[in-house]
Amino acid sequence: MRMLDVIDAKRNGKVLSDEQIQYFVDGVVDNSIPDYQISALLMAIYFQGMEASEQTKLTMAMLESGDQLDLSAIDGIKVDKHSTGGVGDKTSLPLAAMVAATGIPVPMISGRGLGHTGGTLDKLEAIPGFRVSLTEKEFIDQVKEIGLAIVGATGQIAPADARIYGLRDVTDTVDSIPLIASSILSKKLASGTDALVIDVKTGAGAFMKVEADAQKLAHALVEIANGAGVNSMAIISDMNQPLGEKIGNSLEIEESIDILKGKGPQDLMELILTLGSQMVVLGKKADTLDEARELLKQTVTDGSALKKFTQMIEMQGGDTAVIDHPEIMPQAKYHIDIKAQSDGYVTQITADEMGIASMQLGGGRAAKEDQLDYSVGLVLHHKIGDKIKRGDSLVTVYSNQEDISRVEQLIRANFIIGAQVTAPELIHEIITD
Amino acid sequence: MRMLDVIDAKRNGKVLSDEQIQYFVDGVVDNSIPDYQISALLMAIYFQGMEASEQTKLTMAMLESGDQLDLSAIDGIKVDKHSTGGVGDKTSLPLAAMVAATGIPVPMISGRGLGHTGGTLDKLEAIPGFRVSLTEKEFIDQVKEIGLAIVGATGQIAPADARIYGLRDVTDTVDSIPLIASSILSKKLASGTDALVIDVKTGAGAFMKVEADAQKLAHALVEIANGAGVNSMAIISDMNQPLGEKIGNSLEIEESIDILKGKGPQDLMELILTLGSQMVVLGKKADTLDEARELLKQTVTDGSALKKFTQMIEMQGGDTAVIDHPEIMPQAKYHIDIKAQSDGYVTQITADEMGIASMQLGGGRAAKEDQLDYSVGLVLHHKIGDKIKRGDSLVTVYSNQEDISRVEQLIRANFIIGAQVTAPELIHEIITD
Repeated sequence: MRMLDVIDAKRNGKVLSDEQIQYFVDGVVDNSIPDYQISALLMAIYFQGMEASEQTKLTMAMLESGDQLDLSAIDGIKVDKHSTGGVGDKTSLPLAAMVAATGIPVPMISGRGLGHTGGTLDKLEAIPGFRVSLTEKEFIDQVKEIGLAIVGATGQIAPADARIYGLRDVTDTVDSIPLIASSILSKKLASGTDALVIDVKTGAGAFMKVEADAQKLAHALVEIANGAGVNSMAIISDMNQPLGEKIGNSLEIEESIDILKGKGPQDLMELILTLGSQMVVLGKKADTLDEARELLKQTVTDGSALKKFTQMIEMQGGDTAVIDHPEIMPQAKYHIDIKAQSDGYVTQITADEMGIASMQLGGGRAAKEDQLDYSVGLVLHHKIGDKIKRGDSLVTVYSNQEDISRVEQLIRANFIIGAQVTAPELIHEIITD
Repeated sequence: MRMLDVIDAKRNGKVLSDEQIQYFVDGVVDNSIPDYQISALLMAIYFQGMEASEQTKLTMAMLESGDQLDLSAIDGIKVDKHSTGGVGDKTSLPLAAMVAATGIPVPMISGRGLGHTGGTLDKLEAIPGFRVSLTEKEFIDQVKEIGLAIVGATGQIAPADARIYGLRDVTDTVDSIPLIASSILSKKLASGTDALVIDVKTGAGAFMKVEADAQKLAHALVEIANGAGVNSMAIISDMNQPLGEKIGNSLEIEESIDILKGKGPQDLMELILTLGSQMVVLGKKADTLDEARELLKQTVTDGSALKKFTQMIEMQGGDTAVIDHPEIMPQAKYHIDIKAQSDGYVTQITADEMGIASMQLGGGRAAKEDQLDYSVGLVLHHKIGDKIKRGDSLVTVYSNQEDISRVEQLIRANFIIGAQVTAPELIHEIITD
C-alpha cells in the first residue's frame, strides 16, 4: 500500500477501506508517513468528508494506537460524560456525584482548560490537597469502593491523534466534523466506559458556533461511539451565555457544592438532570427518563449525592471541610461590582468573552504551561432576558488586582443591556440515533 | 501575514490576493513555509481552483523566483513554442527552422524526455557534436546572427516551482489545472519570449487524457500567458497515436530532416503548418493564417528552412553531414519487422505504450539519471485507419538486442487490427482567447 493511493482515493471521494485507514494511522504513529502527506489527506478529508464506517474505523485505529483502560474489574454498566467545552461549565462535578449516587459506577477521565474554556481537573485542584493523578489501580479501586472517581488521563492516550491534531492546527483542517469526532472519541473511549453521554455545546462560547455544525458533530459522535460498541447519545445545549452564575475555579467548586445542596442555579440543574437522566437510563438504573430524573432529584434531597462527592474528595486527598467552608479554597483579594449604566433588559452575555475575562484575571490559561490562580473569576448576577435597573450589579469580579479596568471594559462590551428579549433555550436538541 | 490564513482563504473558496500569493511563493523559496502547509494549500487549490488573476500572479511570482533571460538585445518579435509532450513529437525541430526562415527570431529553450515522452534536447544530441548547453551570451549572439537556437535552460529557473512540483508529486495534487499551468509557464516564460504558441496534447499518449481537461488547460495557459504580457494562443492536438512515423532519437532527427526536405509524413507537416502559421502571424511576418501557411511551405520548397537548420547545427557544434547522411548518427544493430497476423484495419496505436516500447529499447529514460541509446526506436509503417493485409510490416523495431520479445509483446498488444475505423482528427481545436 502507498500513502499516495490513500490520498488519491479520498481526494476522489471514495470510501477508504479499513486497511487504508489502519495503514494511515500506523504510518502516523511510526513516522513512516511524512507530515506533508498527512496534511494533504486531512485537507482531502475536509473537502470529501467520511462515512460513518470510516469515522468509526479511524477512531478505533487512533484509540488502539495508545493505552486503554481496562475497567472490567468494575461491576455494572460504567457510564461517562463528555462535553465539547464551554464557559462556566462545571456540570461534570455535581452530575458525576448524582449519577454515582444512583448506583452507577462513574469512572470519569477529564481534562484541563485552555483559552476561554475551563477544565474539570483545574477546578478540582482548587480544593486543598485534591489529587487528580491516580494510578490505574487507585482509580479502579476507588470506583469499585465508592462508584466515583474523576482523574486525568494516565499513560499514552491516542498518540496518533496527538500528531494529527498538531498538523490540523497549522493546516486549517481543524473544523472538519469527521476529524473532530474521531479526535474526541479516540481519547474519550480510552477510558474504557460502557456508555457515554455527550454534551455538544453551540453558540458564541462554543467550538461549534453554528447550530447545523453542532448537529452534524453530535450525530457523528453518536454514530461512531455506537459503532465502537459504546452505547451513546448526545444533547445539543446552549453556550451563547455562560452556564450557571460562576466562572473561575474556586467559584465553580462552590457552585457545584451549592447544586448538590439543592440551591444551585436553575439552568445548571436543568442541564444536569437532562444529561443525568440519560446516563441513568443507559446505566439501567431506570426504565424511563422521567423515572431517572426523579431518582437524580432524590439524590440531592436525601443528601446522597453530596455524600458521594465528599467521599470522592476524601479518597482523592482533598480537604472535605470545603463542603461547608468553601472559603478554605484560594480566595480573591478584591470583589468588585460592575454596575448597570442604564435601565433595560440583558440581551447578550457573550460566553467566550466572559471566559477570556476570567482567563485575563488569571483563572485560565492562554498557553498550556500557564499557572492558574484558583481564586479569581466572575459571578454573574443576571442572565439573558433579566430586567435591569441602572445601578444594579451585573457582575462581581473576583480579582487579586485592584485595577480591573481592562477586564471591566471587556465585560461591559459583552454584557449588553437593551430592549426586551426572550432568554435562549438551554437544551436545543436530544440526539439518540 | 500568516500561511494559515492563506490556506484558510483558499479552503473557503476565496480569491487569493497578489500579496498572499507573493507571500506564499517567497516562503516556498526561503523555506520559511513548511512542507505540510504547502501541501495543505495545494490540496485546497485542487478543490477550489484559481481564477485567471490568481493563476497569472502565481505564475509571475514563481517565474520571478528564478533567473530570467533578457532577450531585448535581439530585434524583432521573438516567438517560442511549447508542447505538453507526446510520443514521436519532433515538431519543434523543423518548426523552429521553418519559422526562423521567415525572418522571425526563434530563441527556443527545450527540455529532456522522461517516461514515454521524448525530449527535444535528447534528440538534438543524437547529432554528433551538437551542444545544447550554450552560455546566455552564445545563445543570444546566435539568435541575433541566424535567428535560431535551441538550447537547455541555464541558471536557476523557477526554484519555487521545483519545490512545489516535488510536493505535488507525493501529495496527489499533480492534476490541478491552475498548478499545471503555472508550473509550465513559470518555466517557459523564463526564456523571455514575446509571443508563445502552445500545443496541448490530448489522448492516450498525453498527460491530459481527457479532452475537457486539455481544453481547460489550454484556456488557462493562454489566459495566464496573455496576463503576463506574452501574446499567446493554443491548439489542442491528438496524441492517441504517435505523431509521424518515427520514435527514437536518431530516427526523429532523420524524420525532421525529411520534413525540411519536403518528404516527411503528412500528419507531422500539418501540425507544423498549423502551429507555425500562428507563430508567423504572432511574429507579424504575415497578416493572415493562410498567408503565413504559404510562407512556411515556401521555406521548404526554396530550401531556406533546411539551410537555417543546417546553420544551427553548425553553430552549435554539430556535424552538418547529418543532413544528407543520417547514418553518421548512432545506428541500431538490428532492424526487426513486426508483421500483421491478420487482415483488417488499424484501429489503435496506443501512443504512450509505443513510447514505453521505445524507452524499453533504451531510447527513453525511466528515471532522470538514465543514459540514452540514441540509435534505437520504432518506425511505424501504418497509422489508424490504414487497411492491412496479413504479413504486412506494421512496425520496424530498431534495437541493439536481438531478442525483442518483450517489446514485441507490448507493441502487438497496442497496435490493434480490427474492423474499419475513421482516423482521428489531428487538430481538435484552436484556442485564442
